[in-house]
Amino acid sequence: MADERELIERIAGRVGVRGEVVTGVGDDAAELANGMVMALDMLVDGVHFRRSTHSPADIGHKALAVNLSDIAAMASDPVAALIGLGIPPDITADDVDEMYGAMEEMAAHYGFTVAGGDITDAPVLILAVTVTGRMRHGVRPVLRSGARLGDRLVITGALGGSAAGLLILDDPLRGDGLPERDALVGRHLRPTPLLSQGHHLADCGAGALMDISDGLLLDADRMARASGLCAEIDLDAVPRAPGVDHVAAALGLEPDLLASTGGEDYALLAAIAPGVALPRDTVVVGRMIEGPPGVIALRDGCDVTPVQLGWEHGHRSGL
Amino acid sequence: MADERELIERIAGRVGVRGEVVTGVGDDAAELANGMVMALDMLVDGVHFRRSTHSPADIGHKALAVNLSDIAAMASDPVAALIGLGIPPDITADDVDEMYGAMEEMAAHYGFTVAGGDITDAPVLILAVTVTGRMRHGVRPVLRSGARLGDRLVITGALGGSAAGLLILDDPLRGDGLPERDALVGRHLRPTPLLSQGHHLADCGAGALMDISDGLLLDADRMARASGLCAEIDLDAVPRAPGVDHVAAALGLEPDLLASTGGEDYALLAAIAPGVALPRDTVVVGRMIEGPPGVIALRDGCDVTPVQLGWEHGHRSGL
Repeated sequence: MADERELIERIAGRVGVRGEVVTGVGDDAAELANGMVMALDMLVDGVHFRRSTHSPADIGHKALAVNLSDIAAMASDPVAALIGLGIPPDITADDVDEMYGAMEEMAAHYGFTVAGGDITDAPVLILAVTVTGRMRHGVRPVLRSGARLGDRLVITGALGGSAAGLLILDDPLRGDGLPERDALVGRHLRPTPLLSQGHHLADCGAGALMDISDGLLLDADRMARASGLCAEIDLDAVPRAPGVDHVAAALGLEPDLLASTGGEDYALLAAIAPGVALPRDTVVVGRMIEGPPGVIALRDGCDVTPVQLGWEHGHRSGL
Repeated sequence: MADERELIERIAGRVGVRGEVVTGVGDDAAELANGMVMALDMLVDGVHFRRSTHSPADIGHKALAVNLSDIAAMASDPVAALIGLGIPPDITADDVDEMYGAMEEMAAHYGFTVAGGDITDAPVLILAVTVTGRMRHGVRPVLRSGARLGDRLVITGALGGSAAGLLILDDPLRGDGLPERDALVGRHLRPTPLLSQGHHLADCGAGALMDISDGLLLDADRMARASGLCAEIDLDAVPRAPGVDHVAAALGLEPDLLASTGGEDYALLAAIAPGVALPRDTVVVGRMIEGPPGVIALRDGCDVTPVQLGWEHGHRSGL
């Protein structure tokens, strides 16, 4: 199989954009001329979660949260979600109820509707979620392709928490006695979609915006390529969630690489032009420079870009 | 696991309808106040298709067609499709290309855009497709709950072709020497979404409308329950696709039951008030009567309602 970037480029080259569609394959969500955006994410047991460590409510929450994060990255508000549920024989009606309970809780919190979907037999538990959202009046979505030379790259919070939480779920000994254990595991099991931060970044003039689903370096690489630039990331500047260093040390991993390649933090990454005031609660982690499109990771000024930029789930990738 | 109807009722009772959503769980598609509709269907290898008998192009076509059929059942036009693709290790980039080729062909034909989605690893091939459509100006979608006492139930074409085609794919000997072999197999592999017929039925004043995805009896049962009525179907009146009788005979099946319980024909089922002119190319197959909500199948005036009303794929069911 071709790597996922090649595959997506191949698909993008094959499909035409027609009618009311303004932005198609290639961003966090598709955009329609009437101000609607829509995104689809598919979560598969054994790939994006494990029933042994994730409760049905965790799974329902996460499936919806990753999609809402795409809506946040389009600076939009969620309107309706459709849920495709593939269920193996050992899933009970109570499990389904618990999944929908967690999803309905998010719907009530963010003011949207779980509006339908599909249920089918499947060999393993699968959730395919589509969320439709609405751009705020007069605001065009901020695409990942809008970064300009000299822009600062900012993120909305500490990274690595979700990856460290997963490493603890993989082997609970890694979290023994760690005060941040529950917070890290919670970051992994129940990601928070940053909807208001998405609006704030757009209001502050972000030129490019996307969510960090697969790791800062991989997602910065995608933004840089979409914008035809090189993203230079200072690993020293990337804030790490409390406890990440401890978990990294237990595994002999570089904490700065765990934080900047570990996925599923669902923080937002934005490109902000020089001279524009930084949005509140953001941290500058790099800049867009000239060079071959892609990403460079610096530590103490030296290029330490890893081969594996992100924490990809095989071919997992938003189109 | 509870049966699918119970499960969907449980889900429908749990989720609230908010904001711009007009129709949520329970119809072919969700409806928004701005005239958009959206539907999601999930197809799983071994449940809805088999890679041994369905080419990648067949699979791509079918995944999109079943969703477009939901849009037809809302008397709407498709605008954008999102494709969630779960791929096992033995799927090649050429297979993916072939699937998208078939989908792009439909998009060009019907004038919509394949606008994004998601790719992920999965144990078997899975396609989750969301199509967003637009109602024609001034037309509310015709829901499945709108049937009235005395309405005639009409369908848009002969049934049983897809089920007979699948039976031939299961055992090619069943199609040996049958002149309609290719047509039946084609009905199964490449269903046609009846978009213009959906508009025509709405224009002709259909009170209720849905697509026949899981078998006439099962889908009439759903329409009847949603409308609080009893659907009486005359099996003798249900037109059968040429060749269906031959395949049924080879298996010792009743041809009228094969036609009215075999799913995946994707014809449309509408309820038309008495006195209203019948839409062109429709056949009356029954009527809405008083009685316990559900369906009754008559043969020569006798109740022959089977236990298995439709050709369900396990828990498969549109919400």
